[in-house]
Amino acid sequence: MGWLSSIFWAFWYILPAYFANASPVLVGGGRPIDGGRVWRDGRRLLGDGKTWRGFIGGVLIGTLVGIVQYFITPDFYGSLETAVKLAFLLSFGALIGDLVGSFIKRRANLPRGYPAIGLDQLGFLISALAFAYPVKTLSSGQIIFLLVVSPFIHWGANYFAYRMGWKSVPW
Amino acid sequence: MGWLSSIFWAFWYILPAYFANASPVLVGGGRPIDGGRVWRDGRRLLGDGKTWRGFIGGVLIGTLVGIVQYFITPDFYGSLETAVKLAFLLSFGALIGDLVGSFIKRRANLPRGYPAIGLDQLGFLISALAFAYPVKTLSSGQIIFLLVVSPFIHWGANYFAYRMGWKSVPW
Repeated sequence: MGWLSSIFWAFWYILPAYFANASPVLVGGGRPIDGGRVWRDGRRLLGDGKTWRGFIGGVLIGTLVGIVQYFITPDFYGSLETAVKLAFLLSFGALIGDLVGSFIKRRANLPRGYPAIGLDQLGFLISALAFAYPVKTLSSGQIIFLLVVSPFIHWGANYFAYRMGWKSVPW
Repeated sequence: MGWLSSIFWAFWYILPAYFANASPVLVGGGRPIDGGRVWRDGRRLLGDGKTWRGFIGGVLIGTLVGIVQYFITPDFYGSLETAVKLAFLLSFGALIGDLVGSFIKRRANLPRGYPAIGLDQLGFLISALAFAYPVKTLSSGQIIFLLVVSPFIHWGANYFAYRMGWKSVPW
């Protein structure tokens, strides 16, 4: 496999996780997952930013992306069942990683929406890779590549959204 | 390879990077790498915390660890040359990752020593894995494992050092 092809399949593989991670911005809102409960430090478990609608919507969108991907490149997945399982685990893993990140940020007393450099760009990715690993994984070179470029894609996308006026802060 | 053995070799592989990352605390001090220069945002390029002595000392300590490792498990490396190259690249990569992290933290206006959750625990590791990749790499499962457990090891070690009175803050 050439390096350009390796890069393409790495992005193709991880696509449901990116979609799941971004979708709560669109489908979010509603009842917070922590139900308003606080941890023993007196602060919210996860905060109002993490809702059931965002979580379930994110898993559904990510899984749907995987189904579309299967019909574009069936050979990459082997079967629709594998594609659905993989996309579900990548999406579920990405959103679990996001929740763990929120939990850690609340414990560190960072306000909701405040950036945690590194955690925000890598937590969902590492969690997605870990959850999906039993079904299908990438080569170690592809994983290292995704880890190196994802933060820059994340910052680039946020900066673009900020310059377009879609976001009020550039992160 | 059993899973316990996989875990052992993953830690064994990455050991020089952990040593290089931790050693500036011991061998640091001296002239800052940025020579006091400021970026166009008016803030320091890297800050006083990143010194030539810390960088060079860290690379030397990490490389020495690799030489000791070679004499304990020569078969894992194949040759002393490979062991030295690998340990040098893991150490150099870890410290470059640390410098990039400092640069990003200064741009985000975080004060020196202030934790960047995620970046501090993962930046040096990802950079070490990327630099060492051409010489010798791990399986994708081992890489995902290191990415998941390293933050917890990092926090555990810092909390231990804090409880022992070696550090004034628990991060």
